[in-house]
Amino acid sequence: MIIVVIGKESPAFAEVAPGVDFRFVGNLSEADDVIETMDAVIGRVPPEILAKAKQLRWVHSPAAGVDADLSPEMLASDVVLTSSAGNGGISLAEHAMLLMLMLNRDVPRWMRAQAERRWDHFRHSELAGRTLGIYGLGNSGIDLAEKAKAFHLHVIGVRRRPEQPSPYVDEVYGEDGFDRMLGESDFVVVTAPSTPATRGRFDADAFARMKESAYFICISRGGIADDEALLEALLSGQLAGAGLDAHGVEPLPADSPFWTLPNVIVTPHNGATSDGTARRGEQIVLHNLRRFLAGEELRNVVDKQAGY
Amino acid sequence: MIIVVIGKESPAFAEVAPGVDFRFVGNLSEADDVIETMDAVIGRVPPEILAKAKQLRWVHSPAAGVDADLSPEMLASDVVLTSSAGNGGISLAEHAMLLMLMLNRDVPRWMRAQAERRWDHFRHSELAGRTLGIYGLGNSGIDLAEKAKAFHLHVIGVRRRPEQPSPYVDEVYGEDGFDRMLGESDFVVVTAPSTPATRGRFDADAFARMKESAYFICISRGGIADDEALLEALLSGQLAGAGLDAHGVEPLPADSPFWTLPNVIVTPHNGATSDGTARRGEQIVLHNLRRFLAGEELRNVVDKQAGY
Repeated sequence: MIIVVIGKESPAFAEVAPGVDFRFVGNLSEADDVIETMDAVIGRVPPEILAKAKQLRWVHSPAAGVDADLSPEMLASDVVLTSSAGNGGISLAEHAMLLMLMLNRDVPRWMRAQAERRWDHFRHSELAGRTLGIYGLGNSGIDLAEKAKAFHLHVIGVRRRPEQPSPYVDEVYGEDGFDRMLGESDFVVVTAPSTPATRGRFDADAFARMKESAYFICISRGGIADDEALLEALLSGQLAGAGLDAHGVEPLPADSPFWTLPNVIVTPHNGATSDGTARRGEQIVLHNLRRFLAGEELRNVVDKQAGY
Repeated sequence: MIIVVIGKESPAFAEVAPGVDFRFVGNLSEADDVIETMDAVIGRVPPEILAKAKQLRWVHSPAAGVDADLSPEMLASDVVLTSSAGNGGISLAEHAMLLMLMLNRDVPRWMRAQAERRWDHFRHSELAGRTLGIYGLGNSGIDLAEKAKAFHLHVIGVRRRPEQPSPYVDEVYGEDGFDRMLGESDFVVVTAPSTPATRGRFDADAFARMKESAYFICISRGGIADDEALLEALLSGQLAGAGLDAHGVEPLPADSPFWTLPNVIVTPHNGATSDGTARRGEQIVLHNLRRFLAGEELRNVVDKQAGY
């Protein structure tokens, strides 16, 4: 069996799967000689390679959100695609809480004062008692809900399948509760994957339904918010502010107005770039590798039509 | 009965205590005519007034930490002193989590990048799995422990009376566990009041016992850390950094080196200055007022010798 791993060599693979011929490469063009015979790829497979990979049965994406893996060719193929969903959930939830706290206390104001050695004492809000609306209750959404409850927030969540268990969430709605969540929330955090159903979901109408005192935070994927509509809502005072880790265009261009809006905190799609994410990602790969070799059902199998 | 309230007039007092002669003043010099006959003061009473207030039975401090209320005259007097302890606990715990997240993810680096419209993507740590040591398990300490558990931290606490219940704290020590807490913690957060026992507790020896990768955070009172020793530990790399809301001298002077250390986040004793703190503070006053009139035991009675 041949498995190509895009990434650096690690003895952990051979330990889990001693009989497998592992090829560690920087990218798939270095694995030209085995494209037609490889059984699995740990990494992203571009459409032109997918067409040639006649023996390929399994692709494991290093990403939690597989929007970039789902080419039309991948959608049409029988290859099983698994994701790394769950690798960054904790780290993203930490980032969301960080952005909520920073926006709610106006941390940039303190940072400016510190730079000027100025004692700028002012009254701010606390999170306790406020309402958090989470769009998407996957790994990061549920972990965020747990944190938010310890911060004494009321937690509302919207998910595609509201009948699934959502611990720590006080009220769970399906998509039909979207407008209600928008209207009730002091913070709206987007943790959903980028799918045909979520892209552009936060449009001008959605922002208009939010409170003027509310903050919009996106930690999962750009494009779920319509950037033009978001910008307009921030400029017009329809929203109090935003914390943006995921952006419609990445890297965010230097001339993007989001960099300089006084009520926006920008981070460079960096919420999950942590030691913990890397460690959990490797655990998920090895877990699936073991199951693949044993012919067992894999974890994090992507529903290609749903997009996650 | 005459009660002097230092602060703005509020109908809530008369509602709770319709028969009382309330005097609302900006400071006690405006209440000269009733100093000798007043029964209680809601506010801080300086020693020279205390000496003249022959009828005074109760003083309620607007502060959670009463170090500034405890003059030698107050220590010697029979007047019951109550504090507002618990008013700011939630807000302070939020501030501590904010500072932990900011230090752990190097938020100042993102803020500099945003100011320069620069996409500065880097790997950072997550809080999950790390150890938090809390010095003082009062209202803010316990609320911080609750939050920290939701962030998947291991929580150690040191308190004067370790036999008291400390929910959310994995390991509770008395003062004899102080060194152990220092050595095991990735974050040490000071939430203790300023008392004869805590002032100067974090000296050069204490900082030397902490990990070089650890962060020191103080949200309660300056002076519990020896500022010279703290500065030296930060300059020498004995500590990774600090988040300081409470300072030895306040306002922090413009020439204080803490403002400009790259691994220090300074906020202006502002952690608890929130809407929620004010609301809870008023609730505590009214609660005690009701009990004072009914001759019942008051909440938050200060143990003057212990200092809190």
